[in-house]
Amino acid sequence: MGKSDKVEAKRLKGFQDYQPDQMRARYRVMDAVRQIAHLAGFQPVGTPALEYAEILLGKGSEETDKQVYRFIDGGERDVALRFDLTVPFARYVAEHFGEMVFPFKRMQIGDVWRAEKPQKGRFREFGQCDLDIIGADSQAADGEILLCIHRILEALDFGPFTISVGNRVVLSGLIRVLLQTKEPEGEVQTLIAIDKLAKIGAGEVSKLIAAATGAPLSRIATLLELTMSKNEMGDTDLSAVAKALGDDIQGIQAIARLEKTLASHRQLIGQEGPGRIVCDLSIARGLAYYTGIVFETTVDSLPGFGSISSGGRYNDLASRFTDHELPGVGGSIGLDRLVAALMELDQLKSPKGRGVFVAVATEDARCFGMRLADRLRSHGVMCDVDVTSSKVGKQFRHADRLGYPLVVVVGTSEMEKNQFSLKNMVTGQETKDLDADDIVNMIGQHLVFD
Amino acid sequence: MGKSDKVEAKRLKGFQDYQPDQMRARYRVMDAVRQIAHLAGFQPVGTPALEYAEILLGKGSEETDKQVYRFIDGGERDVALRFDLTVPFARYVAEHFGEMVFPFKRMQIGDVWRAEKPQKGRFREFGQCDLDIIGADSQAADGEILLCIHRILEALDFGPFTISVGNRVVLSGLIRVLLQTKEPEGEVQTLIAIDKLAKIGAGEVSKLIAAATGAPLSRIATLLELTMSKNEMGDTDLSAVAKALGDDIQGIQAIARLEKTLASHRQLIGQEGPGRIVCDLSIARGLAYYTGIVFETTVDSLPGFGSISSGGRYNDLASRFTDHELPGVGGSIGLDRLVAALMELDQLKSPKGRGVFVAVATEDARCFGMRLADRLRSHGVMCDVDVTSSKVGKQFRHADRLGYPLVVVVGTSEMEKNQFSLKNMVTGQETKDLDADDIVNMIGQHLVFD
Repeated sequence: MGKSDKVEAKRLKGFQDYQPDQMRARYRVMDAVRQIAHLAGFQPVGTPALEYAEILLGKGSEETDKQVYRFIDGGERDVALRFDLTVPFARYVAEHFGEMVFPFKRMQIGDVWRAEKPQKGRFREFGQCDLDIIGADSQAADGEILLCIHRILEALDFGPFTISVGNRVVLSGLIRVLLQTKEPEGEVQTLIAIDKLAKIGAGEVSKLIAAATGAPLSRIATLLELTMSKNEMGDTDLSAVAKALGDDIQGIQAIARLEKTLASHRQLIGQEGPGRIVCDLSIARGLAYYTGIVFETTVDSLPGFGSISSGGRYNDLASRFTDHELPGVGGSIGLDRLVAALMELDQLKSPKGRGVFVAVATEDARCFGMRLADRLRSHGVMCDVDVTSSKVGKQFRHADRLGYPLVVVVGTSEMEKNQFSLKNMVTGQETKDLDADDIVNMIGQHLVFD
Repeated sequence: MGKSDKVEAKRLKGFQDYQPDQMRARYRVMDAVRQIAHLAGFQPVGTPALEYAEILLGKGSEETDKQVYRFIDGGERDVALRFDLTVPFARYVAEHFGEMVFPFKRMQIGDVWRAEKPQKGRFREFGQCDLDIIGADSQAADGEILLCIHRILEALDFGPFTISVGNRVVLSGLIRVLLQTKEPEGEVQTLIAIDKLAKIGAGEVSKLIAAATGAPLSRIATLLELTMSKNEMGDTDLSAVAKALGDDIQGIQAIARLEKTLASHRQLIGQEGPGRIVCDLSIARGLAYYTGIVFETTVDSLPGFGSISSGGRYNDLASRFTDHELPGVGGSIGLDRLVAALMELDQLKSPKGRGVFVAVATEDARCFGMRLADRLRSHGVMCDVDVTSSKVGKQFRHADRLGYPLVVVVGTSEMEKNQFSLKNMVTGQETKDLDADDIVNMIGQHLVFD
């Protein structure tokens, strides 16, 4: 093919290649999610990347949402790539309702697509890891989700993190009582404005709320003050909030539930681990469907980085599809957000400095070398083997570039004696006259010291 | 929302939901691939689901390939969903060439999309697990790929399988010598026809070849006879093929390499395992880019099921993008083909019959119960816990439906004594006065006997 026929090797804007270190970090996160979710009785499910647009966007959504990859397929179907894992799962539940046992604990890991403006650490394709409990409206279910998210982040061992928990019922109650909002629209706009507190500050948020509700600025100031208040634990001062709520029963009950969630979580987690939980009533989450607890999680050493995991309680998962009432609570770990955080923290651990490279000195010993490699692998030792027939010196340099700390050379004499030399690439030390079992044992020790 | 507003919960034709048993089987396959690839020094990479259409389909492919999901995105870009993992990886190599160490051993697992006619066990969205060695043209590299594919299938423990290996150079040599084809087109058409032998039989294949090449039927008969011949090992009779090749040097050398690959593989694998390798020169693989060894893998007990893993050697991975010559060899395991095969074999192992369910009898003991569950999980015991506050009898039935063989009940008295009873749901046996450590130990034993 001539030079002029070449296609430029370029990616779409906002899309990533995952290079080995990054891919290993992705797997590290996914494995932690799977392991802990499995031990806690969550069941893995999967749904397609493509769905009917109507499934994802609702009936009569003629206008294309700019953030959604929507198109007409070869069979003239109006389809779209999923933008989260929740809506397709709602469709899943409506479709498989009869076969499922509720409460259903669901774990789903998958990529989603949003045509948003790409930013640092934010991509148009990214992975999500979702945990949900469907079919139970209880404080215990709220707590179980928070506990599992906490245990997953702890297992990833990246340092201190904070789960900030709010409650939409409490916040809505406060808005209704203080601002005397009559229509739901003013309440929703206020929630959306409060969600922006960290980004744009109290002054701007006040203006937005005043514009949306017409409430007096002094009342808005009281609302924001209560929302942002902190007691000695670092929590929102819920006793002051309760006082302001007066006889708003729903709000008062939600405060009791929230306090129980915080106390239980603290008792379960103790003081030792890297994670902590705080009550932050200003956590509102933009999405309209939350109806109880809401939470966001931040990495303490990356203050400007934003949330790596969020979620909350929703009243009715699948109301778009079915009349079955399905209250649920869920949390989502942003896979590529978390991997980006690990990169920022310089925590993309590489498996370099492990394993052994088998150099092949003579062609007659190749199969013998392969057999050694195969055997070491069967004992759980990472082992690469030459496939180039290059000179042994070049094979050593290749092993070194790949980061293998140990090299075995096999040639005619090694094959005849069935014994090998093992060279430590770091110290230069060479150990002679080993058989395969010796090598398995030595490498076991080496890995311990590694 | 009224009934009339509901959206029908339906999936796109040819797309699957993965229910828990199926998803666990997917993870089982992916984990085996990752484990064995990791131990053999393969490096994980990932590429986006969406690419410029030009990257996937080549320059000037104005006409939409009907099998490709191609569309114009919101930014007026001509894009497409990947239909395999090889072409995007070729783009990856061209883009990251300078940062890579060759030979590069690559492992990639991901979903791909093809708008083919859906059939049993064939879907429009399916997963592939690819292993490749890029930057080495050697028999050793061919052998390493076959060895790793073999070890992965063996680890999945589904029973006997057969890797059938052919070689495009040998087959092309035979076609050239026997049919005296002058232009490459006749040779390619003959390869494509031979690839259909299993499907349409020798009679139809003969006709196709005659139409494409104009060669005499007696010569075509000799070609097919040699291609389908078997010696006492079940291999194509390569000595007869060598005789027919005469002085076609390329073909003769390729036979020597193929024989070495078979002999080495048999020596490495031995007689004990479930897998075997055979030489089958009729394996042609439709795709034009193979230039050496080609292989397909079948499950012995599912004769009509087709291939679960295939691959081969290609001369030049990234010639569409770069002038760097990159010979490679690779194998792909069809993730959802293999899961479909496991379903046919009734081998979707479920983790039912494991773990313990913590029933909560009184609300005051809930946090105590959660702590027990958290502790059991931290010891690797699968443990679910009630979140419903239902009556204990109902909690037992729920545990039973989920398949938990053991239930612990916690209530006020258990909490006060810090001791529990463990009930075996299968035998009905109840063991009293256990503390958390006792339960961890007992469940360890129970799991061993399970």
